Order: sequence, then C-alpha cells, then structure tokens
Amino acid sequence: MKLSEKQLNDYHRDGFLVLQDLFAAGEVAVMLQEMERIIQEDCPRRILEKSGAVRSFFAPEAGSGIYARVIRDERVLLPAIQLLNNNVYVHQSKLNTKHAMVGDWWAWHQDFTFWHNDDGMPRPDVLTAMIYLNDTNEFNGPMLIIPGSHRDGIASTGDTDEKEDDANGWFNAYQNSATYMSALTADLKYTLEKDNIKRWAGRKGIVSAKAPAGSVLFFHGNVFHASSNNLSPWDRHAFLITYNSIENQLTDISNPRPEFIASRNYTPLLKNIQL
Amino acid sequence: MKLSEKQLNDYHRDGFLVLQDLFAAGEVAVMLQEMERIIQEDCPRRILEKSGAVRSFFAPEAGSGIYARVIRDERVLLPAIQLLNNNVYVHQSKLNTKHAMVGDWWAWHQDFTFWHNDDGMPRPDVLTAMIYLNDTNEFNGPMLIIPGSHRDGIASTGDTDEKEDDANGWFNAYQNSATYMSALTADLKYTLEKDNIKRWAGRKGIVSAKAPAGSVLFFHGNVFHASSNNLSPWDRHAFLITYNSIENQLTDISNPRPEFIASRNYTPLLKNIQL
Repeated sequence: MKLSEKQLNDYHRDGFLVLQDLFAAGEVAVMLQEMERIIQEDCPRRILEKSGAVRSFFAPEAGSGIYARVIRDERVLLPAIQLLNNNVYVHQSKLNTKHAMVGDWWAWHQDFTFWHNDDGMPRPDVLTAMIYLNDTNEFNGPMLIIPGSHRDGIASTGDTDEKEDDANGWFNAYQNSATYMSALTADLKYTLEKDNIKRWAGRKGIVSAKAPAGSVLFFHGNVFHASSNNLSPWDRHAFLITYNSIENQLTDISNPRPEFIASRNYTPLLKNIQL
Repeated sequence: MKLSEKQLNDYHRDGFLVLQDLFAAGEVAVMLQEMERIIQEDCPRRILEKSGAVRSFFAPEAGSGIYARVIRDERVLLPAIQLLNNNVYVHQSKLNTKHAMVGDWWAWHQDFTFWHNDDGMPRPDVLTAMIYLNDTNEFNGPMLIIPGSHRDGIASTGDTDEKEDDANGWFNAYQNSATYMSALTADLKYTLEKDNIKRWAGRKGIVSAKAPAGSVLFFHGNVFHASSNNLSPWDRHAFLITYNSIENQLTDISNPRPEFIASRNYTPLLKNIQL
C-alpha cells in the first residue's frame, strides 16, 4: 500500500483523499458486528445524542482486539505515515455512529482547533482516517468538505465566551459540546463562521465524500468539514483514527482532557520505518 | 402552459414533477425581496425555529399583492388544474424559509395525513406547487421524495397518543409540532415509520428534487417526503401553494385549524375552465 505521486498531490492540494474499497465486505461485517457489541457499554467513552441514540464511542480498541488490529492495519497506517511524512501514534479514535433516521448533524469545524486549544497539539501535522462501515450516499449524512480549506491555518471561530468550561470541568463541557449540538450550531465549542464558510464554499465549492463501505477517507486536521443529519433509512457508521506525527507530541496544558480523548502514549505504531 | 402526456404520466407514476425555470430571474428576485419584508412581521402566521430563524410564514398573499398574483399565475395554476383534473382553490400557502447554516429539517411525512385528520379533507385530490426562490442543490436541504409512495393511501404513522392536542388547544399543539421538530422526528405530529420508509426506499430509492431558482416542484398530497437541515452557506427558500380540487372541500370538524392554515374559501381560481 503506497500512495502514488498524484494521490499525495491531491491530498496536499485538497486536504483529503478517498481510497475506495480498502477493506473487504467480510472485514466490514466483522467491524460492524464488533461495533454493535461495543456501543452497548454505558460508560464515559460513550456519547449519546438528544434522541438517546449513540453518537460516538471513543477508543473502542481499548476493549476490542479487532479495532486494535484495524488501527495498526497497514492499509490505513502506511498511507497516514506517507501523508504525514513521519511515523505516527494515535491521538484519538472513535466510532461515529449516525443511525438511520435519527443520526444527528455536525456543524462546520476544523478538528485541529480542538486539538490545539484543548489538548496542546503544536502543529497540524495530523490527519484522520475515516473507515466507512456502511455505503455512504447523498442521503445518509456524508461528510461535507471544502477542498483546500486546510491551507489557511486555524480560522477564527465564533465567540466562545458563553461556551467555556463551567465549574464542573472539562467533562461537562465536553459532554455538552458533543451531545447537544443538534439544531444550534453554537453548541459545538469551536464552529466556523458563516462568512468564512460562504467565502470558501464560493471559491472552492463543497465536496460530499460519498463512497462504498470499506472505503477510507483521509482528511487533514485543518480542513473545514461538516455533515448533515441522517434522514435516510440507511445507517452511516464509521471508525475514525486520528494519526499524529510522533514529532508533534502534546505540550503540557492545565486541565487536560482524558486519555481516551487525547492520548499521551506516543509510542510509534510502525517499527523500522523507512520513509 | 399545458403539460405533455409524458409529464402527466410521470406525475401520476412518481407523485411529483419538476418544471425547470418557470419563473424568470427577475421575478424570483422580486419574490425574494417581498419575502424578506413579509417575514419581518411578528404574528401567529410566522413560525420560528429553535434557533430563532424564521421557518415558515403562512398565507403571505394576505398582505402581498405580489404573492396574491403568484397564486393565480397560470404557470403554476394551469398545471395544478391539469394534474388534479378539476378547478382548484388554495387550501394552504406558505413561505418555507431554510436559512443558510441554520435552516432546520423536516421529518418524513405525508401532507394529506394532516389535512385529512386535522382539517377534514376527504380525499387526496390535492397537490402542492413549490416555487424555488433559490438554487436548490445537494447541500442546502433539498426536498427528498420516495417516488411512487403516493399510491398507497395514508400510511400508518407512529403512535401519536403523546402528541395529541393539550388543553391549550390547536394552536399550542400546532406551534409545538411546527417549531420543535429539530432532532426528534417524533416532534412532527404525524411522521412515517422507519420500517415503512426503509421498505419504500429499498424498492424505489430516494430522489432529491434539485433545481435552479424559478423552478417549480409539483407534489402529490400523499407522497412521502422529508428534507435535511441546511448546512451550506446558501439559503433555500421556497413559496408553497397547496391547490385542492373544488370537489374536495373540507368537511365540518370540531376544533378546526384557523383559516390561514386551512382555508374554507372554496372560490375556484380559474373562471370559464375547459378541461
């Protein structure tokens, strides 16, 4: 699994790259089955939507040999290393479930804003590999991306004064931001401003990352993205692995988020790497 | 403006028909400008979303010569008469505004269920002409339709026991159903069941009614439809006119909804009609 020069150029120009059908149908079926088991567990790593449906489950590999293997699978790991041009570790991983007819939306944001501000990550030398566990089409809430938007650094976000952590600390704030983001874009802690989205979308358009189950979307930590709710009768589940360059380790910050959201285990995933 | 045999057949087979570019850009601009004026008025005909954005404004023609003319414009009126095979009156009209980045979604439903149950409309000899005031694309919450779903009559809806009108009467119930439908599909009074949508979408697929501003979507009172929230930086506003056959007048019911939601003025819109 080695990306071509064109694929590398596409990624660096657009901020994302879709590799179709990296995982076979049987592998996807196993991941889906394991997902159904994992998300039953009522624990802090599980985030619910207002409807009560599961929205996210962080670090599923902690209790799953299957997902632990997927994280190290060379079909996702080697492209990540090639795109970041360095060995990597996992900063964050999660199952994002978007259930048929109830799955909720995600407002426009950049991931790195959260990792930089809340986790102390120095540079955007980071990407996420999103493994599609279902066919993703126009109707079940595909990820929307503005191509090229990763090249401008961290964009300004709305006034977040009212959304700062309260006396209950990070966890409440995190739960609020993750759970109650339905109709009010302001509920996500760092969202992108409308004028900014309008300017970028006017210049570059919006791309909908549709692809069959088993495909993988690699996207840059700074690329603008969002996704609609799922009105269709078709689930749209995915497993997201955020690979960070081993030279981009987190700095010390006060009030860090927990390990299952922002890992400080910097052990490189690949041994004897030759770049 | 006379529909072809093929257009009539398409409508009766699919339950909808899109006529592109019926209104010129200049006409659309006038309607949009008039809309901006109308929706400023704080009154019971205006329905807000949770975000505070305007969601709907009923019977805009009551205070607007422009919209009064649009309702009688032969480009929409004559196709409606031809599709219903009878002279018509207006049962309901409204501006549905879906503002960029805040416009909220509509759960799967059939319109006729509301008109039959709550307004006493006998038969589904009724359709809506939806005039697009903006270009409507994949990203700004186009109407989603299941082709052919109008041919099965009124489908069963979820248990509505908990959603029945309370002591405050129809208006509160209506406000609740219209305003608070964001993340919980149950908030719309009569929504279609997931299994039903899944069965129909599996057989017929889902169609997204994308078209340029000035186009008109005609859709049957019984066709299954829904639409996503608007994550894009592009507004998706529309003017919807529900034409009902003059032989399908409302029956007497207790606790009727007000005139601006369910008109009992049955004056035929076209004089000297020859079908």
